[in-house]
Amino acid sequence: MQPVMILNGPNLNRLGTREPDIYGSDDHADLVGFCVAAGKELGFEVQVGQTNDESEMLAWLHDAADAGTPVILNPAAFTHYSYSLRDACAQLTGPLIEIHLSNPHSREEFRHRSVISAVASGTIAGFGMDSYRLALEALKRM
Amino acid sequence: MQPVMILNGPNLNRLGTREPDIYGSDDHADLVGFCVAAGKELGFEVQVGQTNDESEMLAWLHDAADAGTPVILNPAAFTHYSYSLRDACAQLTGPLIEIHLSNPHSREEFRHRSVISAVASGTIAGFGMDSYRLALEALKRM
Amino acid sequence: MQPVMILNGPNLNRLGTREPDIYGSDDHADLVGFCVAAGKELGFEVQVGQTNDESEMLAWLHDAADAGTPVILNPAAFTHYSYSLRDACAQLTGPLIEIHLSNPHSREEFRHRSVISAVASGTIAGFGMDSYRLALEALKRM
Amino acid sequence: MQPVMILNGPNLNRLGTREPDIYGSDDHADLVGFCVAAGKELGFEVQVGQTNDESEMLAWLHDAADAGTPVILNPAAFTHYSYSLRDACAQLTGPLIEIHLSNPHSREEFRHRSVISAVASGTIAGFGMDSYRLALEALKRM
Amino acid sequence: MQPVMILNGPNLNRLGTREPDIYGSDDHADLVGFCVAAGKELGFEVQVGQTNDESEMLAWLHDAADAGTPVILNPAAFTHYSYSLRDACAQLTGPLIEIHLSNPHSREEFRHRSVISAVASGTIAGFGMDSYRLALEALKRM
Amino acid sequence: MQPVMILNGPNLNRLGTREPDIYGSDDHADLVGFCVAAGKELGFEVQVGQTNDESEMLAWLHDAADAGTPVILNPAAFTHYSYSLRDACAQLTGPLIEIHLSNPHSREEFRHRSVISAVASGTIAGFGMDSYRLALEALKRM
Amino acid sequence: MQPVMILNGPNLNRLGTREPDIYGSDDHADLVGFCVAAGKELGFEVQVGQTNDESEMLAWLHDAADAGTPVILNPAAFTHYSYSLRDACAQLTGPLIEIHLSNPHSREEFRHRSVISAVASGTIAGFGMDSYRLALEALKRM
Amino acid sequence: MQPVMILNGPNLNRLGTREPDIYGSDDHADLVGFCVAAGKELGFEVQVGQTNDESEMLAWLHDAADAGTPVILNPAAFTHYSYSLRDACAQLTGPLIEIHLSNPHSREEFRHRSVISAVASGTIAGFGMDSYRLALEALKRM
Amino acid sequence: MQPVMILNGPNLNRLGTREPDIYGSDDHADLVGFCVAAGKELGFEVQVGQTNDESEMLAWLHDAADAGTPVILNPAAFTHYSYSLRDACAQLTGPLIEIHLSNPHSREEFRHRSVISAVASGTIAGFGMDSYRLALEALKRM
Amino acid sequence: MQPVMILNGPNLNRLGTREPDIYGSDDHADLVGFCVAAGKELGFEVQVGQTNDESEMLAWLHDAADAGTPVILNPAAFTHYSYSLRDACAQLTGPLIEIHLSNPHSREEFRHRSVISAVASGTIAGFGMDSYRLALEALKRM
Amino acid sequence: MQPVMILNGPNLNRLGTREPDIYGSDDHADLVGFCVAAGKELGFEVQVGQTNDESEMLAWLHDAADAGTPVILNPAAFTHYSYSLRDACAQLTGPLIEIHLSNPHSREEFRHRSVISAVASGTIAGFGMDSYRLALEALKRM
Amino acid sequence: MQPVMILNGPNLNRLGTREPDIYGSDDHADLVGFCVAAGKELGFEVQVGQTNDESEMLAWLHDAADAGTPVILNPAAFTHYSYSLRDACAQLTGPLIEIHLSNPHSREEFRHRSVISAVASGTIAGFGMDSYRLALEALKRM
Repeated sequence: MQPVMILNGPNLNRLGTREPDIYGSDDHADLVGFCVAAGKELGFEVQVGQTNDESEMLAWLHDAADAGTPVILNPAAFTHYSYSLRDACAQLTGPLIEIHLSNPHSREEFRHRSVISAVASGTIAGFGMDSYRLALEALKRM
Repeated sequence: MQPVMILNGPNLNRLGTREPDIYGSDDHADLVGFCVAAGKELGFEVQVGQTNDESEMLAWLHDAADAGTPVILNPAAFTHYSYSLRDACAQLTGPLIEIHLSNPHSREEFRHRSVISAVASGTIAGFGMDSYRLALEALKRM
Repeated sequence: MQPVMILNGPNLNRLGTREPDIYGSDDHADLVGFCVAAGKELGFEVQVGQTNDESEMLAWLHDAADAGTPVILNPAAFTHYSYSLRDACAQLTGPLIEIHLSNPHSREEFRHRSVISAVASGTIAGFGMDSYRLALEALKRM
Repeated sequence: MQPVMILNGPNLNRLGTREPDIYGSDDHADLVGFCVAAGKELGFEVQVGQTNDESEMLAWLHDAADAGTPVILNPAAFTHYSYSLRDACAQLTGPLIEIHLSNPHSREEFRHRSVISAVASGTIAGFGMDSYRLALEALKRM
Repeated sequence: MQPVMILNGPNLNRLGTREPDIYGSDDHADLVGFCVAAGKELGFEVQVGQTNDESEMLAWLHDAADAGTPVILNPAAFTHYSYSLRDACAQLTGPLIEIHLSNPHSREEFRHRSVISAVASGTIAGFGMDSYRLALEALKRM
Repeated sequence: MQPVMILNGPNLNRLGTREPDIYGSDDHADLVGFCVAAGKELGFEVQVGQTNDESEMLAWLHDAADAGTPVILNPAAFTHYSYSLRDACAQLTGPLIEIHLSNPHSREEFRHRSVISAVASGTIAGFGMDSYRLALEALKRM
Repeated sequence: MQPVMILNGPNLNRLGTREPDIYGSDDHADLVGFCVAAGKELGFEVQVGQTNDESEMLAWLHDAADAGTPVILNPAAFTHYSYSLRDACAQLTGPLIEIHLSNPHSREEFRHRSVISAVASGTIAGFGMDSYRLALEALKRM
Repeated sequence: MQPVMILNGPNLNRLGTREPDIYGSDDHADLVGFCVAAGKELGFEVQVGQTNDESEMLAWLHDAADAGTPVILNPAAFTHYSYSLRDACAQLTGPLIEIHLSNPHSREEFRHRSVISAVASGTIAGFGMDSYRLALEALKRM
Repeated sequence: MQPVMILNGPNLNRLGTREPDIYGSDDHADLVGFCVAAGKELGFEVQVGQTNDESEMLAWLHDAADAGTPVILNPAAFTHYSYSLRDACAQLTGPLIEIHLSNPHSREEFRHRSVISAVASGTIAGFGMDSYRLALEALKRM
Repeated sequence: MQPVMILNGPNLNRLGTREPDIYGSDDHADLVGFCVAAGKELGFEVQVGQTNDESEMLAWLHDAADAGTPVILNPAAFTHYSYSLRDACAQLTGPLIEIHLSNPHSREEFRHRSVISAVASGTIAGFGMDSYRLALEALKRM
Repeated sequence: MQPVMILNGPNLNRLGTREPDIYGSDDHADLVGFCVAAGKELGFEVQVGQTNDESEMLAWLHDAADAGTPVILNPAAFTHYSYSLRDACAQLTGPLIEIHLSNPHSREEFRHRSVISAVASGTIAGFGMDSYRLALEALKRM
Repeated sequence: MQPVMILNGPNLNRLGTREPDIYGSDDHADLVGFCVAAGKELGFEVQVGQTNDESEMLAWLHDAADAGTPVILNPAAFTHYSYSLRDACAQLTGPLIEIHLSNPHSREEFRHRSVISAVASGTIAGFGMDSYRLALEALKRM
């Protein structure tokens, strides 16, 4: 099966614990289960990583770049300032899909700016957990 | 079957004729066929409209608002200035998904700003025709 | 009786259908009735036009310019970007009153900017349907 | 009779003395007479205050807030910087109508920005003394 | 004879009727006659279209793109906001010359910004009707 | 014959030597020949000056102002900052046409801003050497 | 006992009367009592002044400067524009603590900018009446 | 003798008390003496007013406007925000000279912006008390 | 005793070693001792954490969110860019007080902007180590 | 006699020839005579230089720096962009007075910005030729 | 031998693997070898650290500050946002040289802004690996 | 020996005379000697030019472009505005190194912007005279 890396940024380990009106009530383990299952259905061997640590995120992206693995990235708050993440994304050899659970454009002004989008193949935002499944389906057809 | 409106904005009738490196080589009729077929597969009765006329687009959105029909909107260049479109979108009673064939954030600066996104449920960009299919799948699960 | 043109911009045909908390529950036909009656009382022969089509709005403004007819204009979302409308307004030979049902300054940031105001004789905003009657009364005394 | 406070900001005591092409040739006493008469006609007991002193203006607004008196405010140059005035206006319990004799949007750039408008019920500008009468009529119908 | 399309944007049907100090006293029919004659002299079969309707302008540009016809475009107020027009212009296969009757840079600030210029071959502004003839001469030598 | 001054700004002495894809392969002497010939044809006695020295350019403009000579000015990089040049241009008594070989709006952002345009009668850009001939033809008809 | 001046800016005389959700339900007399008592406890002879008048505020600051009295200043809306206040504060010879009842950064954009903070020793915001007591405790330890 | 009004804005009553490195060690009484003497020498009957109260400053300017008295104004911190002062200055019938003791452009960024200068006949800054004498000499020669 | 978390951001482990004129001469161990003692006095069981690692800071904030522990946060340089920190702070269930040793508004321009303040209950800045004690006292009274 | 250098920037050699409504009808020779005479009266040996050449202006400023000569500088259009001039002025060892014939703040926006003022001892603007005499008088008293 | 720390920021461990057209084909081990050798030649004992972890970078800078070791820093993407890094750099007691392999000013707009440069002794950019050697040579001569 | 041109911009002829704390105490002749000697050591025949005249600088750059000579350019104040210089630099056929004696980023805001850097191969700043030697060494290895 084709491997796919799903990488979740800062505070996403808190999923389901807080602000369920914005992010839903499932927690990160639920999300992992959801993604692995959705991936299997589509023929992908999905690995889900979550980290609050920019350098760990970079290491995963470097691995993906070496292996040519497609990446589905939810950069969370890194979206708005981590040029390090951007530079790592720019080196990817497989496709990169930037996703968000909620729609950043209907939230605070600072969430309207992404330093990552310019180096992504595509972006999907606002569908809750389904943002992940849609990204997998997008990969499937690429 | 659940009706869905897919609305395409200015210059999308030119699909396949020009700039195939950005937008692909299929033309708008191909896109309509693709969308109707993808919709049928998912249990949707898809109607695809394309117009270069802001007022016609508004009329379609008003119809969708009255009927509660979900809308998949590719606002094309209207994205960047048509507050009329935004106001019509804000009145929709069903979900609204904003889509783009290409990723506006990897193109010219003026394409980074959308006056529509803030009133969309979600956004999908950068997957060519598959942006449409992904939007249909997103609707399916809502 | 002195003729007056009342011109309503995009989405105002939806009056009363949506967002009654902002715009009131009367629909556009009610508004027409209200304006014609209020005009008659003040000795004006009021014609009310509503269009979502920028070019139709321009045509009406050109007619008003030729006839020297005073214009009461609710540009709706055109307020924020239609320099075409502005140029047509600048050619009017009778007075132009810009009106709004709600107060744009207490809503989203983008509604604070009007490309029309600079060429209007006066502006009235925030009084619901009474914005129209006040504009007629203002014309009466000019 | 229902009391109404009409409050005029800095330099409006100079009305009729200077710049008659912008502000007309009637002086402030004429304006008071005009407003009292117009009010009486509409069933209002109008009190007109003019001050160049921000703190006196605040005191009047505080009185209006306590009594629930509607306020018609011509903030003059305070429009562009007095956040103190804005905060006092935000505390009003009756309606607040912001008015201007001339149309600020057809004058210097700095006059396009009002720190008051966001907390007003409605705004009327550009009709000379009639701006006051229109505001009274607007109050009448609220 | 080589066909050339001359396309005039919003409010240009009012030529000669208003603001003759800026735009001259000839009307649009005069302009058509002038352009056709000037074209004939230079060996061009000139077709002049004027529209206040963005979608009609797009249709004409699409025709020109299909036929490879050179276009002389006076976008009038569309200059400042119509990204739809820009996208249509970007698809032209023949040369595009953007022209203006007056010099936008010696007028209001908002007229200094063109969303069209970046996709034009060249620009000519400030020569009244002669802007058209100069554009034809420019085409002649390309 | 009516004298005309054609003034070329900094680095234009390098014409034909560098960046022929932008500026063409003819050198400055060719340009002088081209302009003199084109002028003669139109009944103008053309003098072409080129200088990299702002003060020499001012001196030439002062001469033109004294004699009422029409000026065709290619300010080159001075376009973007030389307010001295602007002040000298503002004193001209004959017409001033600002020209550019290439279209500054399709190049770097800083080239979009001209401190000269506001005081020019008209502008022509993007036609290579023909920009000069078109300017002469424009003068012919003034 | 060491004297301390506590100075309250515009509209703070309205404390407790309006917007109790933001400012609490105690009125200004309660605040005075609270401050005097808190001061006494800490060995300070507290004088509390409130004014809506910029010039009165300046006079108090001048007195404090002459006497070297420490000042706790709640500039209220003056915070955002009164450079006069800033200049008076810059002349203080004792410490200056800027305080706010609520946290300006979680309110409107214009409240994020203080022209006073740069000349304050320290700032305390968001603790309601306790902002005053905390400022007194801060002074105690200086 | 020709009367002249010299008006000093907020905090200038503190002259000589604070920040002598910026403003010199003479106090306001010294300044009054200096100005009266300098005026007498030049044939002027000088009246010097100082106020921290915007409304008092307006009253003095209104008096000057009525009498046609020339005004020398040191607006101090009002320079940067008091549009009320600007409007009063704009009504003056005699000349207005804006002066500053120090050079605002060599101090903080916010001091570089004057809302008064645009309506002054001339400005003088940076000469300490001599700024006043120079202004009197300037008036002498007008 | 009520637990309280005091969290110190990047470079605060260097306290006392460098720039004693800005930050005082006590080192971080002294600060810990000071905070623990001050907390004990007020009935708080204070835990002080310092980290240069954004992800460790997030982990601590997540712990505080789970336990409902009040947080006193000195975000140091994270103040100006770490939206990850902001998101973690927004999830806190107990109060959050943002503190700074020095007053950021009297230092470099970039220190004037905090991405954290909008989600803090209150802020205290400029009192050196006493900023911590004041925050504890503020918590005490909440 | 104490030497003083008066340096006039670009286009000032045109004085009296053009735009007499802004700059008066005396020419540069008149200005030289006026300055020399005014200087003599005050005990100064005045040398007046005018140049359109930035490098010549620098040379004169270098001479002044070496000799410690006071400089009265009318930078004309160099005011708005010549950082070279600014750097030369910053090296002066005697006082520098920046002057302007007219008041730049009542003219175009771009004239409101001076790159020179921050390094001047003082500035005088708006008094025509008397700006020079006032500057000499200012020097006299320094 | 004098120790020198060479610190490389995020993604520089990827050197040689990706984007060789920008960064050259040597990998990070080659760079370490190159730097150690170049250092030895110049009498420096060079230690090269690379990290993607902001906190590890801070720790190294703290060590350098304690030991007074000169630092050559390639902050990579941290350049554009890490104020933490800036604060650590500001505490260095030996010289700091900021270097870049490529020239950030000829790349994307966001790379033009460095939050580090203001606290560096000097900067070197655009020479590939030689940027490091040049920095060592610069240190040699300090 | 390989020729190299070292070009110094405005005011650098003043080296050593003024502001030795920023620029060192050696004068321009010393700098020439230093550069020639450093060049000889590295096998370069160095020619050093200094000019305050933009047009002379352009001429030297044109010569370098014709001969393919490498250029080391210290543009001094031209850095911040001379687009003429930029255009000349863009035509160079050999490498261009931009250097500065001091680090512009630790000085005034306006010095942070270079219009030259984007067209330089590399930049070196902050090492005093050694900036020149480092540039020569950089050239050596290219």
